[in-house]
Amino acid sequence: MNFSSKLLEQAVEEFGKLPGVGKKTALRLVLHLLKQSDADVSRFTDSLDRLKSDIKYCKTCFNISDHDVCEICSSPKRDHSLVCVVEDTRDVMAIENTNQFNGVYHVLGGLISPMEGVGPADLKIEGLVERVRKGEIQEVILALSATMEGDTTIFYLYRKLREFQIQISTIARGISFGGELEYVDEITLGRSIATRVPYERNVG
Amino acid sequence: MNFSSKLLEQAVEEFGKLPGVGKKTALRLVLHLLKQSDADVSRFTDSLDRLKSDIKYCKTCFNISDHDVCEICSSPKRDHSLVCVVEDTRDVMAIENTNQFNGVYHVLGGLISPMEGVGPADLKIEGLVERVRKGEIQEVILALSATMEGDTTIFYLYRKLREFQIQISTIARGISFGGELEYVDEITLGRSIATRVPYERNVG
Repeated sequence: MNFSSKLLEQAVEEFGKLPGVGKKTALRLVLHLLKQSDADVSRFTDSLDRLKSDIKYCKTCFNISDHDVCEICSSPKRDHSLVCVVEDTRDVMAIENTNQFNGVYHVLGGLISPMEGVGPADLKIEGLVERVRKGEIQEVILALSATMEGDTTIFYLYRKLREFQIQISTIARGISFGGELEYVDEITLGRSIATRVPYERNVG
Repeated sequence: MNFSSKLLEQAVEEFGKLPGVGKKTALRLVLHLLKQSDADVSRFTDSLDRLKSDIKYCKTCFNISDHDVCEICSSPKRDHSLVCVVEDTRDVMAIENTNQFNGVYHVLGGLISPMEGVGPADLKIEGLVERVRKGEIQEVILALSATMEGDTTIFYLYRKLREFQIQISTIARGISFGGELEYVDEITLGRSIATRVPYERNVG
């Protein structure tokens, strides 16, 4: 691209580093911001600067938080003996939206992925083992993605946690609600038959 | 969405204001930036702050520039009697990339659009008329989009400029190079037959 301005080029380059944002989209976003008022652009950049400088991670569950201990971990209404292990804060948000879970979380901050150079030491696994070792936790739910990396991480966590007297479970896998049988992939369909559950449990 | 942090929520809200960026994409982008180093995030926000505070618009053609007069307008190698009128800086970049144009530009900053409340007074039309009035310009090429807004703006500019002794032209419309006839829309195909050109001119 032939930029008429070095400043414009630099801003486009920075936006182009964002995931899924190409050069053309970056230019569109930057030109959009250039049309906004000074106050609007300041609010945009300030929100990021403040997020980056002031954000905290909960000391217990490592979720993103404004405080040292997040609202969920400090709530007496939650069941602190039940811990749901997730990859990142988006999963916490997704599970909170279901209104089906009253326990607490543990945010790993990623999944084990040799391809991307992420090993167990890069994740908050020691913190989880520490929490379990304290003896207050009765069940750990491994709510990780049904991918190669998710399965690898589940296997690693299982081997780390099985020495403790706790229940280790994974979230149920099967056909989505509303999913039509003929469009379900073969592996999911096969596994959902192999791991079938009594009718009484499904409607319970 | 249930955000675990107010700072996170504000940053996501700001990103969600960008065109074509929904809440989920905004969250993904913000979490990506949160994982980057402090220096990387500073570079991102600084590039925007500097762009917004230091950017200039060329006094002659109103293109985005780092100087009072842009490189194209100040170049003695360009033909200053030939002015190409475009909507915004992206069009300048696109035309420069063709290496087919050696004149100068005039950037309107938009198109007349009653639907979006953009009238002639919001565009750099007076500046164009001023340039033409000075008498150095021999031809004005109206290189605007082939849309309702583009056609409206072309018509408006034509009426403003026809009193001067200059050539007013529009860029050629027709079938794209590589375009297969059966997939071309009817209006374009019909017009391309009505405005057919002698073979000698097309290969020239």
